[in-house]
Amino acid sequence: MTHLGKIGVVGAGAIGCFYGSKLMGAGHEVHFLMRSDLAIVRERGLVIRSGGEEEIFPRVHAHGSCEEIGPCDVVLIGLKATANAEFERLLGPLLGEGTVLLTLQNGLGSDEHMGELFGRERVFGGLCFVCLNRISPGVVEHYGHGTLSIGAFEEPAPEALGRLVAAFQETGIETRAVRDLAAERWRKLVWNVPFNGLSIAAGGVTVEEILGDEELERVTRGLMREVIAAARALGFSLEEEYAEDQIERSRNMGAYRPSSLIDWQAGRPVEVEAIWAEPLRRARKAGVETPRLEMLTQLLRKLSA
Amino acid sequence: MTHLGKIGVVGAGAIGCFYGSKLMGAGHEVHFLMRSDLAIVRERGLVIRSGGEEEIFPRVHAHGSCEEIGPCDVVLIGLKATANAEFERLLGPLLGEGTVLLTLQNGLGSDEHMGELFGRERVFGGLCFVCLNRISPGVVEHYGHGTLSIGAFEEPAPEALGRLVAAFQETGIETRAVRDLAAERWRKLVWNVPFNGLSIAAGGVTVEEILGDEELERVTRGLMREVIAAARALGFSLEEEYAEDQIERSRNMGAYRPSSLIDWQAGRPVEVEAIWAEPLRRARKAGVETPRLEMLTQLLRKLSA
Repeated sequence: MTHLGKIGVVGAGAIGCFYGSKLMGAGHEVHFLMRSDLAIVRERGLVIRSGGEEEIFPRVHAHGSCEEIGPCDVVLIGLKATANAEFERLLGPLLGEGTVLLTLQNGLGSDEHMGELFGRERVFGGLCFVCLNRISPGVVEHYGHGTLSIGAFEEPAPEALGRLVAAFQETGIETRAVRDLAAERWRKLVWNVPFNGLSIAAGGVTVEEILGDEELERVTRGLMREVIAAARALGFSLEEEYAEDQIERSRNMGAYRPSSLIDWQAGRPVEVEAIWAEPLRRARKAGVETPRLEMLTQLLRKLSA
Repeated sequence: MTHLGKIGVVGAGAIGCFYGSKLMGAGHEVHFLMRSDLAIVRERGLVIRSGGEEEIFPRVHAHGSCEEIGPCDVVLIGLKATANAEFERLLGPLLGEGTVLLTLQNGLGSDEHMGELFGRERVFGGLCFVCLNRISPGVVEHYGHGTLSIGAFEEPAPEALGRLVAAFQETGIETRAVRDLAAERWRKLVWNVPFNGLSIAAGGVTVEEILGDEELERVTRGLMREVIAAARALGFSLEEEYAEDQIERSRNMGAYRPSSLIDWQAGRPVEVEAIWAEPLRRARKAGVETPRLEMLTQLLRKLSA
């Protein structure tokens, strides 16, 4: 087993619980920072449901404060990007010499923010191509997919990258190292921008409803092409065919509700800045016209205000 | 006084009541077809509030059926375009030889539909540049503006056009004859497409809130330019500066709720086909890219479904 040392998970929503549990299941020492779910997880543990099967982790290191966890070797960050102003307070107590930070967050801006605060060489990003929902306290439903792409914020990649990738591969998750983390973030946005956004802006619809409507599929494709055009203008290598590929891969997702829709319907903040506004700002800087992204961003700002 | 003969008003919402009352106030014989407001209007009449003043019409010819009204010389149509499938049932009994139909409806398609059913030479369109809301049964609040542009569907314009324009001018409403009704409809869409649409898609915002947000104003301008580009490609003469003109004219509208927003918030059907979908179809036919209009149309379809 690849040795990662002591692992902390901050932001134990669906993403944090799923990937943290996978590492725990493979024998790693994982400590979860929990808020509302703390008491229930301490009592009943964590449950990951997948394809009708339940994986139960009855004994979980669940903590109510970062100070209680203390310095870690690796920290997985599953916070919503709307909570990034709390990085110092939440991550500070977990840092020791050589602590590696792996952010599993969506959108743009978290790597830079974390790099400035704690040093760029510590920062890694993991892009989760996975369908997950936290369906009740301590219970995460896994609908499918799960691939993880991990890259370093700093070039050339520090050696920790190989260990992170190996450790996740050993859990059974399809994991690959990516050379260009920023490019991979844009690749993920090709999916998140249209599906997370339209699911809210169309009043609360699932991936199935978006792709079940020929005209909304056309809007989805238009948004994807804008994201790809912006990424290419910024120097990232994204193929234009990637839009079609992502649409085809999403056809079997069924009535999946993207995470932003779940946040919105639950009255929680939506990651508008990270997923839409920051990409829009960068597209504008690169001189790329993104009329659909522009409109969607402003609607989401109002809808989630 | 210009003689119009017997006038019927079908679709006695804010628009029908306002313009019908104006004619009534100038001495014309006006019969209103009413549904939910019938009893109250028979008892209390119609009230038009404007700038703190109330104009009360205590005695109104209010009817519960078209058959009760019988053939008219002029019929004002204030129906929502979502009710256009009812044209035959509602307008048939009001038609006599030479009856003139003046539709005050928004969007595209009503003229054609009415022309096919009843003969193109009868059909006139009136574009109402006015801020009105029906605030309670039989009570219409007039917030400002009021200009009426009337054109004939058939070229050259039948002689009735002059009489219609003269009769409205005599009521004190700024009214002008337009040569190209279709062009005027597109001109009106330059306002309705963004303001009616964004007010709904942004979750229920007023004109003031749209123009109070720099980014939403930018989206508004983008939508206006798309509508103008489509109209120009279709051969209508709309100046590109018309977008800026319309934005400037809307800055003093305050917390005005466009009629589509009021319909949506009241759970009534929204005129998606007439105001957004039909313009989008025609823009596509003309080969004009309208990404914002396309997205807004599909969102509104879902939001009002």
